[in-house]
Amino acid sequence: MALRPNKLLHHLWKQTWVARTRNNVTTSRIMRPDDANIVGNVHGGTILKMIEEARCIIGTRHCNTQTGDRCVAALARVERTDFLHPMFIGEVAHVSAEITYTSKHSVEVQVNVLSENIVTGAKKLTNKATLWYVPFSLQNVAKIVEVPPIEYSSPEQEEAGKKRYEAQKLERLETKERNGEIIMSVSLPEPYTVAFSQSSLIHLIGPSDCTLHGFVHGGVTMKLMDEVAGIVAARHCKTNIVTASVDAINFHRKIKKGCVITISGRMTFTSNKSMEIEVFVDADPLVEAEKGKYRAVTAFFTYISLDKDNKPHPVPPLKLEGEEEQKRFEEGKARYLQNKAKRLADKERQQ
Amino acid sequence: MALRPNKLLHHLWKQTWVARTRNNVTTSRIMRPDDANIVGNVHGGTILKMIEEARCIIGTRHCNTQTGDRCVAALARVERTDFLHPMFIGEVAHVSAEITYTSKHSVEVQVNVLSENIVTGAKKLTNKATLWYVPFSLQNVAKIVEVPPIEYSSPEQEEAGKKRYEAQKLERLETKERNGEIIMSVSLPEPYTVAFSQSSLIHLIGPSDCTLHGFVHGGVTMKLMDEVAGIVAARHCKTNIVTASVDAINFHRKIKKGCVITISGRMTFTSNKSMEIEVFVDADPLVEAEKGKYRAVTAFFTYISLDKDNKPHPVPPLKLEGEEEQKRFEEGKARYLQNKAKRLADKERQQ
Amino acid sequence: MALRPNKLLHHLWKQTWVARTRNNVTTSRIMRPDDANIVGNVHGGTILKMIEEARCIIGTRHCNTQTGDRCVAALARVERTDFLHPMFIGEVAHVSAEITYTSKHSVEVQVNVLSENIVTGAKKLTNKATLWYVPFSLQNVAKIVEVPPIEYSSPEQEEAGKKRYEAQKLERLETKERNGEIIMSVSLPEPYTVAFSQSSLIHLIGPSDCTLHGFVHGGVTMKLMDEVAGIVAARHCKTNIVTASVDAINFHRKIKKGCVITISGRMTFTSNKSMEIEVFVDADPLVEAEKGKYRAVTAFFTYISLDKDNKPHPVPPLKLEGEEEQKRFEEGKARYLQNKAKRLADKERQQ
Repeated sequence: MALRPNKLLHHLWKQTWVARTRNNVTTSRIMRPDDANIVGNVHGGTILKMIEEARCIIGTRHCNTQTGDRCVAALARVERTDFLHPMFIGEVAHVSAEITYTSKHSVEVQVNVLSENIVTGAKKLTNKATLWYVPFSLQNVAKIVEVPPIEYSSPEQEEAGKKRYEAQKLERLETKERNGEIIMSVSLPEPYTVAFSQSSLIHLIGPSDCTLHGFVHGGVTMKLMDEVAGIVAARHCKTNIVTASVDAINFHRKIKKGCVITISGRMTFTSNKSMEIEVFVDADPLVEAEKGKYRAVTAFFTYISLDKDNKPHPVPPLKLEGEEEQKRFEEGKARYLQNKAKRLADKERQQ
Repeated sequence: MALRPNKLLHHLWKQTWVARTRNNVTTSRIMRPDDANIVGNVHGGTILKMIEEARCIIGTRHCNTQTGDRCVAALARVERTDFLHPMFIGEVAHVSAEITYTSKHSVEVQVNVLSENIVTGAKKLTNKATLWYVPFSLQNVAKIVEVPPIEYSSPEQEEAGKKRYEAQKLERLETKERNGEIIMSVSLPEPYTVAFSQSSLIHLIGPSDCTLHGFVHGGVTMKLMDEVAGIVAARHCKTNIVTASVDAINFHRKIKKGCVITISGRMTFTSNKSMEIEVFVDADPLVEAEKGKYRAVTAFFTYISLDKDNKPHPVPPLKLEGEEEQKRFEEGKARYLQNKAKRLADKERQQ
Repeated sequence: MALRPNKLLHHLWKQTWVARTRNNVTTSRIMRPDDANIVGNVHGGTILKMIEEARCIIGTRHCNTQTGDRCVAALARVERTDFLHPMFIGEVAHVSAEITYTSKHSVEVQVNVLSENIVTGAKKLTNKATLWYVPFSLQNVAKIVEVPPIEYSSPEQEEAGKKRYEAQKLERLETKERNGEIIMSVSLPEPYTVAFSQSSLIHLIGPSDCTLHGFVHGGVTMKLMDEVAGIVAARHCKTNIVTASVDAINFHRKIKKGCVITISGRMTFTSNKSMEIEVFVDADPLVEAEKGKYRAVTAFFTYISLDKDNKPHPVPPLKLEGEEEQKRFEEGKARYLQNKAKRLADKERQQ
């Protein structure tokens, strides 16, 4: 049977819509004063939290489309994320998440963040993020369930997804937990040293930080990590600072309701216009004391300093003390140069 | 020029998309423990707040689509709204707002709220709301600006919108402000009396106010006590006021999740530069009615008034009415003098 | 065995560090707009809440260090606390808590609060607080458990702690509950009357309640209105209650940042399965005193009572006192019947 044009259109539209609502979700929210610093720049952590919430909605929805165990989607990894433009109080953040690859046990979600000034109408792409999650059974949180496969628009698309999957798997296996320990110094440290700006924050995990099943939302953790990194950056350069990027984050272990988490940050590297801050998250199950404290997450945040016109501002160089700090600085420099080279290559490819 | 089918399709899609993003917005959010009561039912107020936020986004966006004054969209009226189904913690609320009618100065927005259980996939329409707003100039908030007209899919649609507009206009004119007295205040008390500034606040203890074990954090209680004391102080002296000290606080009895607490404050004493406010906390275990209301905490807060340079500012003396107030004033004065003497002694010891 | 000097040092350091993490905790947080008043002074209550949170972490951790019952640490008393310096938005509050004395059943925690301006680097001691807590068994919240003893650096230190313990014990015993009457409630109203369930709430409009232009979001007002209506409904029928509908709401006048709003609710009508609550919102521009209090919004909320299976539950009839209440009841009944008729008509039309 031949469809008349308008029927065809409606048919295609419906198909698109069904696909959209299955593999796709958009959340939107007005940015409030508490989402931003005193100059009005929205915290990178606020955006990371929204990204993770969109991921959680689409992820939980997708992994429950098949009959079988009911499950929840736990965040396993966030790929390196760049903050392309600052966002401001009063703007609307639109966060769109789409499932772009599924393996047997893990799912890739790509998320775009758009800022919209609802008064001037200006729109900007502020972030592109890639997250990986793994579905766990609700009946037994130790059991990983199988992921329903998605349909790809072309074999090439599927192949490219598989490559991304293999690459991140390799990288996750390589990432041994970084074993830094931050000890607060006894005597007053000199300005621009690592000891001078290092900071630590403690948070008691409450009900609103958790999923229904009593585990901390990855977004809550990332927001606190960004807060500590921001304090370290501000202490170092004493200006308005904003998140420029976050390195890949691996979520090694889940964190339960009632834990106390300690989030510590120390500066590892400075270039002319950027600072790299290493952040550790340690979880301490207060009541079940015998379980002991454990390292739950680590990541590198890159911050830049802004002047009054929101333009990048030079950063005072980090004063290094001892071999350890020297070594971390060199490692930071290597990451910095690698990212710079990658950005240049991406730019050339686009031209 | 004839478009090839897929070009046509793309063209139509783009048009639809532009129309969608101009007159339509959807916000989505996972419901958290703080959005619901202790049984897990999401508060109607949470949904009303989300409805209004979606309305604000689409409204501000629409009224700024034309050149001219930048403007904001102020809510003028919400039509009768039914809550068709309960929503629960862990579900996702999808709130879609669409502009459905515009007159010269006001705009009708229709909002649908859908609940989605992302585990079972069940979806329900939980609310349909109609809101009216009026755009104000940002340069001059007293000036109402003109609304850009929308396009209707048919003359009947426009006609129906006009009828709704006329009906609500009539109803708004008829609704003279309901002249119910402000409950519990019989006659207006004289300025600077105890009755003039005394204040009372009720708070329903939610999940985030509590420890894991369902009892209110002492810190939550103290924060609310300070809030009431601050309102009493501000009502008395109408300036910027700050907490100077808190007397010893004894926590006589624990307060459980689900209680309503009433925090009441009254001024007891004023010196030249300070005010003492007595604060009571009464707990009412709503559901376990047989237990009855009980006094849980009491304390004295001392506030000072600050001028524009953050320097202490004279406080208007408290007007006393009756023996009781006189007696409390004398007791407050004794505490004031005792603390002053203690501060002086501490100072001398340190020298 | 003799330790080499640097090993010895490290050994001592490690001991100190372990001691620190056991008896000592520091939490840090940036002060947000919602933590402060409109001039930027952080609320005393915000600081009290942080003090108590640090106390809770160290307390729960300490009382679970020994084998035996799992326990929680409940706040029993806060000694007099002075606010030595104001703190401002954007500053970081560092709250350090240390266990300084233990008796058999209670623990003293001393807390210091430091404000740090992370831009200028200026630091100030803003508070010193002393708190006492008592550990309760998690299995049986009526059972007080024994406190693991701490080690003192000298017998004098222990002796001084013991004196503080005895002094506060005496004072707590002396402090009979201050028998101030619950303000404004002259006689206890009879259950099921209007006076019995009527409730009133005050809220200071903070930055996050407002649009960029300093006016309250309509959604914030509606959420508070629903909160008061819910408390009235719960007080009346002492069961799980949910919002069933909201009558048309007209927003007569805008409400500005910094106002105190009073939201009052009273029951006007009950049917077999529903309650109607009238809610008033009055705004009081504290600082611009000449403007005076004004009625900003009014509305009717309808609530239903639910049993344990989320099914509607009969509502106790409202006891009316006086002509006014009778008149309001009749008006409420008219609205109820009108809405019922409308619902039936809508249903028939759909069939």
